Amino acid sequence: MTVRLLTLAIFAAPLFAQAPGPRDAAARIIGHQVVESRAFEKLRHLTDRIGHRLSGSPQLEQAVAWAQAEFRRDGLTNVRAEEVQVPKWVRGVERCEIVAPANHRLALLALGGSVPTPAGGLTAEVVEVRTFEELERLGEAAVRGKIVLYGQAMVRSGEDGPGYGTVASLRTRGAVAAAKLGAVGALIRSLGTASFRLPHTGATHYEEGVAQLPFAALAAEDAELIHRLLEQGPVKVRLELGCSTGPDVPSANVVAELPGREKPEEIVLIGAHLDSWDVGTGAHDDGAGCAHVMDTMRTLVALGLKPRRTIRAVLFTNEENGLRGGRDYFERHKDELERHVAALETDSGGFRPQGFGWTAGEGADRLLRELVAPLRAIGADGLRVGGGGADISPLARARVPLLGLRVEGTRYFDYHHTEADTLDKVDPTELAQGTAALAVLTWGLAEHAETLPRPPLRAEDAEAQGQRRRPER
Amino acid sequence: MTVRLLTLAIFAAPLFAQAPGPRDAAARIIGHQVVESRAFEKLRHLTDRIGHRLSGSPQLEQAVAWAQAEFRRDGLTNVRAEEVQVPKWVRGVERCEIVAPANHRLALLALGGSVPTPAGGLTAEVVEVRTFEELERLGEAAVRGKIVLYGQAMVRSGEDGPGYGTVASLRTRGAVAAAKLGAVGALIRSLGTASFRLPHTGATHYEEGVAQLPFAALAAEDAELIHRLLEQGPVKVRLELGCSTGPDVPSANVVAELPGREKPEEIVLIGAHLDSWDVGTGAHDDGAGCAHVMDTMRTLVALGLKPRRTIRAVLFTNEENGLRGGRDYFERHKDELERHVAALETDSGGFRPQGFGWTAGEGADRLLRELVAPLRAIGADGLRVGGGGADISPLARARVPLLGLRVEGTRYFDYHHTEADTLDKVDPTELAQGTAALAVLTWGLAEHAETLPRPPLRAEDAEAQGQRRRPER
Repeated sequence: MTVRLLTLAIFAAPLFAQAPGPRDAAARIIGHQVVESRAFEKLRHLTDRIGHRLSGSPQLEQAVAWAQAEFRRDGLTNVRAEEVQVPKWVRGVERCEIVAPANHRLALLALGGSVPTPAGGLTAEVVEVRTFEELERLGEAAVRGKIVLYGQAMVRSGEDGPGYGTVASLRTRGAVAAAKLGAVGALIRSLGTASFRLPHTGATHYEEGVAQLPFAALAAEDAELIHRLLEQGPVKVRLELGCSTGPDVPSANVVAELPGREKPEEIVLIGAHLDSWDVGTGAHDDGAGCAHVMDTMRTLVALGLKPRRTIRAVLFTNEENGLRGGRDYFERHKDELERHVAALETDSGGFRPQGFGWTAGEGADRLLRELVAPLRAIGADGLRVGGGGADISPLARARVPLLGLRVEGTRYFDYHHTEADTLDKVDPTELAQGTAALAVLTWGLAEHAETLPRPPLRAEDAEAQGQRRRPER
Repeated sequence: MTVRLLTLAIFAAPLFAQAPGPRDAAARIIGHQVVESRAFEKLRHLTDRIGHRLSGSPQLEQAVAWAQAEFRRDGLTNVRAEEVQVPKWVRGVERCEIVAPANHRLALLALGGSVPTPAGGLTAEVVEVRTFEELERLGEAAVRGKIVLYGQAMVRSGEDGPGYGTVASLRTRGAVAAAKLGAVGALIRSLGTASFRLPHTGATHYEEGVAQLPFAALAAEDAELIHRLLEQGPVKVRLELGCSTGPDVPSANVVAELPGREKPEEIVLIGAHLDSWDVGTGAHDDGAGCAHVMDTMRTLVALGLKPRRTIRAVLFTNEENGLRGGRDYFERHKDELERHVAALETDSGGFRPQGFGWTAGEGADRLLRELVAPLRAIGADGLRVGGGGADISPLARARVPLLGLRVEGTRYFDYHHTEADTLDKVDPTELAQGTAALAVLTWGLAEHAETLPRPPLRAEDAEAQGQRRRPER
């Protein structure tokens, strides 16, 4: 009898698929991801068959086409590419060597957006600093004509010391700071947490009216070598970068929807970014996020879960070196943003999910706690104030509640922005768990009678109101 | 009174320095290495200021000159360079990419000794095997015209599965085996235990009368990528290697002695190899061994320890791609080898010492246990049957007892033969402990009234007797 009831319950499930309770829906989503996840398969295609996806590369446009085809095959609607002009930066020859007091070839990657060196490279003495304050203290007399090395090491998530958030500004603003004191080039110890002679790239920025310096990241070992040699005397380095920036080229955000059954005009956005750096295959960053999003959408369709509100998946273009996708989305959908009830991004890798960070109005945690409660079983019900993602960050100006998927991040910066960010680093089970976590919260946000309270307008956004666009970061 | 006696004992130490008891000597050696070790300083110069030391490179000859100067400065006698002709293999352009079904640049290193590809490279389908048996089963029909990929993964020391000893033959003999079945090139999954897109080089060999195939090692990730793509269909690779082998050039074994006070004609040899691959700086392989040996010699001089027998340090040349140094030593010192009472090599890295492996006559462990007993305090008193080292291996033919320093090897093959074998991977304290362990056993072997029983002649050596030289391995 019990068995027959259970059997009935299982097979009757599609009959009440329209609006199961939150725990029922979560159980079905999690079970589906355990048994039928396609997240890894999607990620495998994106990384192995398409490859890296730098803005301006044919691979990124292949990915744009493939993602649309996948969404259609998986039964989503309103699948489309929203065109976005993106920068085209191309890595060229990259050479760096210590030429005195000994000769060493160094392992490096130009930072994304860097200008090239003069043809034939440049040779100069190195001056090392760990912070901008130290650079300022040295002053122009010590820096003019030199190559500045930012030698600060970063620590692994959870360890004491400067993490990515602290050191990333050395990479984004280091060329400008060095140029202001008359340096001729800049190097940075890679922002990474493993030491296998593996340089980490990433975006750097220039400022109008300040000389543009060639800027590259060295493997941790090579930064340490220069540090040790500097203890004994002057160190001279030859740097040659052949990178170049061409005119903007067209790319696109890929959009797909699961229309709402009651309030189709209200939108829960879930996003990740489709582009990557041109090293490795962007498996964790952010192929995994794309797989989370794409397989969340497929799962909801496969389970016949029709949400009260519309769920819109957006695979953004050009997160890495321009954020043009996120900005375009904001501009293009300005009139809809009041009806965006939440935006979730996943851009922290395909590791085991831990929960979500959130930026919303006061009291949002009450509803969020209810929505993530079924994720306790897979350890993904943690909530932390503060969270979102780069692509959805412009939506703060429209007071959209922002959320970010949090994952176990100890090893993320071992591979981040390197040749080693490849599929083998992603565990299929962990990727499916992340997908389940994203899908459960997405369903909850789209289905629950209530929506999250909207955050107050941030002071900087209030100030910027009326401007069409913030300056490039 | 007690204090005064102690003071007297400490300051009187040099008075009975001629022949302290084994525990006294060990205590002084270990204490000296804790407080006054110069091992790391020597290694730092060798790696940071000289750099990698491939046979035929100017850096190796710089190292030969530097090591002699160091030995002289440290008070050793009979310091000399014994000239040895070594091969000059030079790495050239190295490119490998998957060209179908997708495009991927691969991370690779040509294997040492490899021939180049035809100019412009070669493009062929890949056939993957994990063992020579699998290759044989596939047979010529499946292999002719293809590039053979040896895809076997190796495991970390202490883990279950094929270790370096098992997979190394794929690297040394893989080109020959593939050529015999008509392959046009060969690739191997790097023999290594970490996965950070880091290829591992190493020597490979050819056989007279068999076509010489270009042979390179891929990063583990790239071998796995090919494996995954092969699950879905054919994979085509383009390989271009520009390496070349020139005529032999002169190099040298560096020799230094601490003459015996009673039996100067009896010799305890301690050795390491001064050459390295041309990637990284050979910090663990075998800069650390050179530092062990050099600082053992300096320590004994500094402590005024004059051994009963002569201790001879030999820094061998060309261990990595020829073993010419070890072979030359055997030939040049043939008449002395009967009086070599032991030969110790350190070529397993600068990690925490665990003890020694030994190859000697029956009962040798009794004396060895006595000699290593004082090393229990630093956990370096382990003894294991079987041991020696590549450079001293020819001495087996003269029945010299052979020993090898054993170290904690879990991470050795993370870095072995890669760009990441750099000074930062060596812990100064562990390096000093290794030096202490080597010095204590060296002193014991040179000082003890007894010597180790000599091992019986191995069958293969008995057979080879009369030959001047074994064929190149």
